[in-house]
Amino acid sequence: MSASRRRIPVTVLGATGAVGQAFVRLLAGHPWFELAEVAASERSVGKRYHEATHWLEGAMPPEAAPLVVESCHPASVKSALVFSALDAAVAGDVEAAFARAGRVVLSNARNFRMAADVPLLIPEVNPDHLALLEAQRRERGWTGAIITNPNCAATVVAMALAPLHRAFGVRQCFVTTLQAISGAGYPGVASLDILGNVIPFIGGGEEEKIETETPKMLGDLVGLTVKPAAIAMSAQVTRVPVEHGHTVCLAIALERRATPEQAMEALEHWAGEIVDLSLPSAPTPPIVVTRDDARPQPRRDVNHGRGMTVTVGRVRRDPILDLRLVALGHNIQRGAAGASILNAELAVARGIVTL
Amino acid sequence: MSASRRRIPVTVLGATGAVGQAFVRLLAGHPWFELAEVAASERSVGKRYHEATHWLEGAMPPEAAPLVVESCHPASVKSALVFSALDAAVAGDVEAAFARAGRVVLSNARNFRMAADVPLLIPEVNPDHLALLEAQRRERGWTGAIITNPNCAATVVAMALAPLHRAFGVRQCFVTTLQAISGAGYPGVASLDILGNVIPFIGGGEEEKIETETPKMLGDLVGLTVKPAAIAMSAQVTRVPVEHGHTVCLAIALERRATPEQAMEALEHWAGEIVDLSLPSAPTPPIVVTRDDARPQPRRDVNHGRGMTVTVGRVRRDPILDLRLVALGHNIQRGAAGASILNAELAVARGIVTL
Amino acid sequence: MSASRRRIPVTVLGATGAVGQAFVRLLAGHPWFELAEVAASERSVGKRYHEATHWLEGAMPPEAAPLVVESCHPASVKSALVFSALDAAVAGDVEAAFARAGRVVLSNARNFRMAADVPLLIPEVNPDHLALLEAQRRERGWTGAIITNPNCAATVVAMALAPLHRAFGVRQCFVTTLQAISGAGYPGVASLDILGNVIPFIGGGEEEKIETETPKMLGDLVGLTVKPAAIAMSAQVTRVPVEHGHTVCLAIALERRATPEQAMEALEHWAGEIVDLSLPSAPTPPIVVTRDDARPQPRRDVNHGRGMTVTVGRVRRDPILDLRLVALGHNIQRGAAGASILNAELAVARGIVTL
Amino acid sequence: MSASRRRIPVTVLGATGAVGQAFVRLLAGHPWFELAEVAASERSVGKRYHEATHWLEGAMPPEAAPLVVESCHPASVKSALVFSALDAAVAGDVEAAFARAGRVVLSNARNFRMAADVPLLIPEVNPDHLALLEAQRRERGWTGAIITNPNCAATVVAMALAPLHRAFGVRQCFVTTLQAISGAGYPGVASLDILGNVIPFIGGGEEEKIETETPKMLGDLVGLTVKPAAIAMSAQVTRVPVEHGHTVCLAIALERRATPEQAMEALEHWAGEIVDLSLPSAPTPPIVVTRDDARPQPRRDVNHGRGMTVTVGRVRRDPILDLRLVALGHNIQRGAAGASILNAELAVARGIVTL
Repeated sequence: MSASRRRIPVTVLGATGAVGQAFVRLLAGHPWFELAEVAASERSVGKRYHEATHWLEGAMPPEAAPLVVESCHPASVKSALVFSALDAAVAGDVEAAFARAGRVVLSNARNFRMAADVPLLIPEVNPDHLALLEAQRRERGWTGAIITNPNCAATVVAMALAPLHRAFGVRQCFVTTLQAISGAGYPGVASLDILGNVIPFIGGGEEEKIETETPKMLGDLVGLTVKPAAIAMSAQVTRVPVEHGHTVCLAIALERRATPEQAMEALEHWAGEIVDLSLPSAPTPPIVVTRDDARPQPRRDVNHGRGMTVTVGRVRRDPILDLRLVALGHNIQRGAAGASILNAELAVARGIVTL
Repeated sequence: MSASRRRIPVTVLGATGAVGQAFVRLLAGHPWFELAEVAASERSVGKRYHEATHWLEGAMPPEAAPLVVESCHPASVKSALVFSALDAAVAGDVEAAFARAGRVVLSNARNFRMAADVPLLIPEVNPDHLALLEAQRRERGWTGAIITNPNCAATVVAMALAPLHRAFGVRQCFVTTLQAISGAGYPGVASLDILGNVIPFIGGGEEEKIETETPKMLGDLVGLTVKPAAIAMSAQVTRVPVEHGHTVCLAIALERRATPEQAMEALEHWAGEIVDLSLPSAPTPPIVVTRDDARPQPRRDVNHGRGMTVTVGRVRRDPILDLRLVALGHNIQRGAAGASILNAELAVARGIVTL
Repeated sequence: MSASRRRIPVTVLGATGAVGQAFVRLLAGHPWFELAEVAASERSVGKRYHEATHWLEGAMPPEAAPLVVESCHPASVKSALVFSALDAAVAGDVEAAFARAGRVVLSNARNFRMAADVPLLIPEVNPDHLALLEAQRRERGWTGAIITNPNCAATVVAMALAPLHRAFGVRQCFVTTLQAISGAGYPGVASLDILGNVIPFIGGGEEEKIETETPKMLGDLVGLTVKPAAIAMSAQVTRVPVEHGHTVCLAIALERRATPEQAMEALEHWAGEIVDLSLPSAPTPPIVVTRDDARPQPRRDVNHGRGMTVTVGRVRRDPILDLRLVALGHNIQRGAAGASILNAELAVARGIVTL
Repeated sequence: MSASRRRIPVTVLGATGAVGQAFVRLLAGHPWFELAEVAASERSVGKRYHEATHWLEGAMPPEAAPLVVESCHPASVKSALVFSALDAAVAGDVEAAFARAGRVVLSNARNFRMAADVPLLIPEVNPDHLALLEAQRRERGWTGAIITNPNCAATVVAMALAPLHRAFGVRQCFVTTLQAISGAGYPGVASLDILGNVIPFIGGGEEEKIETETPKMLGDLVGLTVKPAAIAMSAQVTRVPVEHGHTVCLAIALERRATPEQAMEALEHWAGEIVDLSLPSAPTPPIVVTRDDARPQPRRDVNHGRGMTVTVGRVRRDPILDLRLVALGHNIQRGAAGASILNAELAVARGIVTL
């Protein structure tokens, strides 16, 4: 897009919650998109955004504050491009209604992620999966579309595995996560549950999401379907008293042998599949490799690349399989709202959304 | 020991540090042992214990406070039974000198753990390894002995694996740990490094300890040597902002298939190898299994069995191998000072130390 | 009470919440009281206690687990002695109904604390205020009674001021508090609000409670009314990421000059007004003075005297007024459930409740 | 300074420590200053800066990394403008040597703060105190100069009081602080001392600094001396588990009555004394007043104005004196390195340092 073109008006559904606020925050000053409308549950409809929202981080963007909260129905919302931060409980019906009504929905919800005709998209990893939209429109009769981004922890796993899978083939991956509290939204995790503590569980099928979403993302497009990658996944999640940043510890079996040094080169030299597009939210490079044994650390590394860079460290030989490593990504930026916005940028670049 | 017998005088080497203090705290009111002497580095020698020590937890036991700190030499210390909380930098020479001088040393240091003739002991797991002392005395010409307890994280791993290994045979184990700050001693981890943060590394070869100490502990005694168990181990450690309690996440491959329910039964019904001895510090049962998905949690579960019980939860089928589970143990009680004291109790019960 | 007497059956109203759970925990094994019934909101009525409750700390007492949750009405509850952990929103009506029905209610709620005919009681401080019950019964026609304990932060302030007020007269007191998250109940404070953070406010009129409850407690009984102490109070509260323990920083003006040494003596030698009664929950002494500049600290000092002791430190000359000091007390034990139980013990010792 | 002028070369003394690193971080990209040299203790001399430094926050500025660490002697350092992050143990002699050698030293150390001929400077508060340099040079015979910035907590107190003192006269001020761990440097506070805890003490005379530095800063210049403001101060400090940001709770007595609304207006409308100079690090406005009861909060408000803005909230009538309020400032930016840099900018603007 040329700098002179005017910005595309967009709407955030579920704008008052934690992820919705992140959309509003990241869209402020976005070069391509302009926050035109906010929508939320009936309780908030008709209020000004600043009245309806308990703002969580930094200062509310002044252009968002006076917006009147709309209802989450296509009839109430004008934008052709819609970001969904809706709860899974309602996201299914609402997002389908918008797609049916001709809108392009960038969804952070889990409802459609595993549907065969819905792209589960990380632009650097599988931009070709956008081709699923053709099947989606044909089968569902939608004039719009739904494009989803993965679970926040699955995002970090998929980013770290993608270059290794391309270079050496990944066969197996054991994952243990240490996930930040902001991943649970607001009010989310009670302080009495997490202060000085660890919780070895996250509800909503977090482990299954990591185990199933990752192979879909790393899968190959065959015709208009995705053949999931043949990667056996095993995940154990934990919640830790960290504000932002999911840390994932991986043990990896490869198809073709690779030394830790070769693995680090593959990770460092990986430009992602969209390097030529210069998408505004795409970090360069997408992955940074650290050789400092004590890194990555969420508090110190989470904001690299405005939260869109994944930091990988402790790359070494695994005593049983091939590789061990630790990866860190920002669960809100890279893992939720920022991910949807990057997906929208790709959709614009590919002409799926036009002004 | 009958209640009427008088208590055995013991000495703590390295008594002013964090683990040394834990020895002093746990020995206060011990039914079999009486803290007779404290010893530490030259800087503290000659001072009263309460003057030489920055006490970390609860109130200093009144009987310890007035003790004059002795030098860490056999000539300065009378007790036949000696607990070593010494740093690895000095533990090797000092502990050997005491063993040579006829003392039984219960050591928390890493120096002798992997020596072929030194028991690496958890009474519930491998009490028969005490037989190595015969080889130790013969080969080294010592009239005393060194008995070691394992690394704090390896302890939790070995406790959780022992019943499964006995029942089904463990072939492989992937470990990710979330370790408490108290495991690093005092001052240990700087608050600027860990507040709201995770560090994916612990110095001193923590991962190697877990990978090598566990098979030795679970190994079979063959003649006067231990044949390590044929368990392939892979460990990734992390430090988390938790005061006490190491959480370990395991993925386990078995020799013989077992359902999660069978695994839980094996864990719950395991009495350990010393149930008949009624050692004062041995918890009954040694392992508690929780079926609450959100447990174990360090802050809520670490003190079960006065910190000597290991709590196991999230036992389930692993998508790749056989089992997944999470285990938690107190790194100071079960993993350091309390471990040495329990070892000493076994040594007394077996007649290795007599009054 | 002699050891042979049987225990008095008691009921906890609001038993499923955080303070209610603390009552249940502290009543387990109480020498005088026996938890006979639990009552809670209609949502829980009819369930077993262990089904209705998300238990927060340690293990649920086995005797409590199978109790069927009753309705919070006098007709549903048999005990003559009733502990109220009810929310202020409902406590007023419910507690009055129980008192009207002849029950003695020990309340942790704020509703009746400042009523002229209701004792706001700390046994060590103002046991004579129990005389208000005569007025209460006469004026309200109740055959039962309501006895309240103060706000958790006001409790720590009043305990620290009481010996100084008796000895030297307190004229003014500036208070800044650092309050633990458990004071807000469960789920209470969201972790995103408090992790690595401070909140300079606590809702529900926390500052006003400290400013008004303290003078009432330190006031003199004149006939059947309490004349509040003439102490000007100014309070600023904050919430800090601490699990248990409210720290209060005081600057104090006295009627009669006192050196810090004299103040510490007054605090240390204060036995409280009930020393002769040997109440089971009353710590001896009620206040411990530390001369360690770095104390009191919540994590290290909060459990002194099973959480009933108040620890005072940093006693020194104030550059403007007379004294500066820092006091710490356990907000659940000394400041809520434990406080009500101690009040009940006094009520029993004074014959207000009989078996 | 015009944008075309070249930047002034500067040196940081004590560049490897926590405050030294903050200088290096803040000087990167500074429009007027260019980091030309770093100096530190003999242990680091001769090493590259990146080899000598355990970098704490974000990424090390690339221009600093290759600098060779110099010795802290005037002979080893060329810059006319020198920032001192030295420890008090050595700062006295070293800073004097530099001033004697004709250098202008901007010092964060406490050694010279209270000297009668040394400016204790906050540009917005007392820029006229720079006149003391005339006395300093005359009396000491220095061709250079020493300009100090106050203690980090005193800075926040003085900033909040300055507008009130100008408008209404401050007579008394009771201070309780909740200070961040980064104020103690690195490694600083041990995590075992502060995780989930509060420490009611900070060594090095923190309370005295607040009580004595504040009146000096708010004092009037009379001839070439400063007459301290007649403000009686009383301070209690605490350390809390917060990364950055000192929170101070104030109770204030005024000379002339003011309502909270008038106080907020005075705070909000205060432009500081240097508004016309447009110094690069000076925030506009210097103070932000929040009317949200739950603010200011360190994690959410500390970075306003790139850490140079002080946020004031909870402004209300004090029940005893006149006003209560809570102020928050960044202890590193506003309270240490950033403060010295702002002082240097003023020195440049006033012609004390020239290119």
